[in-house]
Amino acid sequence: MNVGGKPYRTIWLNGDGWSVDIIDQTLLPHRFETVTLRNLSDAAHAIRSMQVRGAPLIGVTAAYGLCLALREDASDAGIDRACETLRNQPKDKLAGIAYRRAAEMADDDVAICKAIGGHGLRIIQALAAKKPAGHPVNILTHCNAGWLATVDWGTATAPIYAAHGQGIPLHVWVDETRPRNQGASLTAWELNGHGVPHTVIADNVGGHLMQHGQVDMCIVGTDRTTASGDVANKIGTYLKALAARDNGVPFYVGLPSPTIDWRIADGIREIPIEQRSGEELSQVTGRMSSGEIATVTITPEGSPVANYAFDVTPAALVTGLITERGVAKASREGLAALFPERAGRAG
Amino acid sequence: MNVGGKPYRTIWLNGDGWSVDIIDQTLLPHRFETVTLRNLSDAAHAIRSMQVRGAPLIGVTAAYGLCLALREDASDAGIDRACETLRNQPKDKLAGIAYRRAAEMADDDVAICKAIGGHGLRIIQALAAKKPAGHPVNILTHCNAGWLATVDWGTATAPIYAAHGQGIPLHVWVDETRPRNQGASLTAWELNGHGVPHTVIADNVGGHLMQHGQVDMCIVGTDRTTASGDVANKIGTYLKALAARDNGVPFYVGLPSPTIDWRIADGIREIPIEQRSGEELSQVTGRMSSGEIATVTITPEGSPVANYAFDVTPAALVTGLITERGVAKASREGLAALFPERAGRAG
Repeated sequence: MNVGGKPYRTIWLNGDGWSVDIIDQTLLPHRFETVTLRNLSDAAHAIRSMQVRGAPLIGVTAAYGLCLALREDASDAGIDRACETLRNQPKDKLAGIAYRRAAEMADDDVAICKAIGGHGLRIIQALAAKKPAGHPVNILTHCNAGWLATVDWGTATAPIYAAHGQGIPLHVWVDETRPRNQGASLTAWELNGHGVPHTVIADNVGGHLMQHGQVDMCIVGTDRTTASGDVANKIGTYLKALAARDNGVPFYVGLPSPTIDWRIADGIREIPIEQRSGEELSQVTGRMSSGEIATVTITPEGSPVANYAFDVTPAALVTGLITERGVAKASREGLAALFPERAGRAG
Repeated sequence: MNVGGKPYRTIWLNGDGWSVDIIDQTLLPHRFETVTLRNLSDAAHAIRSMQVRGAPLIGVTAAYGLCLALREDASDAGIDRACETLRNQPKDKLAGIAYRRAAEMADDDVAICKAIGGHGLRIIQALAAKKPAGHPVNILTHCNAGWLATVDWGTATAPIYAAHGQGIPLHVWVDETRPRNQGASLTAWELNGHGVPHTVIADNVGGHLMQHGQVDMCIVGTDRTTASGDVANKIGTYLKALAARDNGVPFYVGLPSPTIDWRIADGIREIPIEQRSGEELSQVTGRMSSGEIATVTITPEGSPVANYAFDVTPAALVTGLITERGVAKASREGLAALFPERAGRAG
């Protein structure tokens, strides 16, 4: 996607043939900087510090991290254990094989996201056909399931970029997405860079907008989807899905099928919800009028904070799951129809 | 309520018999400072800059502002127009009459809030009776309908303070309440000052907590309630009410009956929703590690923001309206039964 008119992926191999660059997403939207990963520890740090985030991008970063480790020491026992297929190869070729595999993963991710975009595009086209000429399709999204969370295109945003590319007028309501502000920081930044009309709103606003007909569809990503279509995603997704149902607004989830967990069915009971550091809530980072980046604490001293990272949206609230193979009903049957080979194996 | 062990109201007449002090709520939770109002312009500024907020407190501040104006110039035509009843009094006694009336308003507000507390206390007692011994009643609140929004006790918080005073174990989930952070700044600060156990959470979290049985009741305030029980309150209230219904959690609203607008019925259609400055969303104020108060911008340059201040929760989602006369069903009939003289007049 475009940044300042120039197309970028979120991760790429450098011209030297071995080092890997990423966008430091912790600095967005205030500064656009890239970071070079030169060893496994750089890659691990990038994941841990959330310079990269989003399941697809984390996966590709880990794969490149392995490349970098193999390049330095192909005999490392810990790496060997993690990569049984690679272990059967000649040691001196391991790094080369890993690089090719990482590049394939990156290209696979782009292909999956493009396919999600193509299927979602048809939903947006159908909504656009019902609007008066020139009226934009209003799409609400929560968190960042954008190209920054993948290698390119994004999952939830792929249909948006596809529709924008086709010249369909659209406007995106971007949930701020507390506590880490991924909407205000990342989704707004990438839509802005690519020229897609959008407005940042507080997470509290979506219900009001839907009551007043100002949202034509919701589309979000997912960290984990159960075999029955329950969706674990950034905290607050469930609230938007409730409002969508209450107001007859279609609620879609964009997802690469590898994020479906075929072993579990009941997301609310079976998916443990991570609690992250309370400082993500109590502290907010932004730029001061001087341009300097600063972190401020917004809660009183002495008030405890709790930071639940995800919630689970029950399948019954989801209109459709937009996968790389097409749009599935959010149900065991719906997913099994699109992925018979996976559903059968898990059953 | 207590601040550092000392009881305060939010507004009080000073020992000089004419100037009025308020708590500067824009500095909370970082600094506790009082401001002296010496003329109408001070009072108007206090309201406009949100040093005072909350309908009851704004009303009392306006009343004292009038006292201060009358003290300086009892003949002012603009003030005369606003106060027909006062105009019939001898001019030289106007200021004294206004001061008495403002003090009565303040005392009336305290009495109303205490009565709300008494009625809500019984709801909390009933919930406590069903919990295993020692387990706290978990109460979720949104925004600040606390004593800081009134003269004392608060509306939504009055039952909480009453129950806490009776030794009922309870714990309050405090919604951060974006974009102005009234929960993180004000509700957390006042609960902390009074020693009520609480935890600050992002606005996105309540649905997840309710799915997992961690909320026994919700209680919020209201800016305006229709004759049929629709509730206009801080943006995001509607989303919490949806989650409460979806999970069988009772959802109460604490309100002084003067905030009921008997002339309107359909809150979603008839209540215009204020849009406030986008900077309330794009900028966040807090304290830096140096202790200095700073404001940072969290959105990208070039990304528009929208700031809807309120939403309307339909009566069907409200378990009960806790008024100074008792708990009413959120319906025309429920309110009319408690306030027959008002309902009849409006009909």
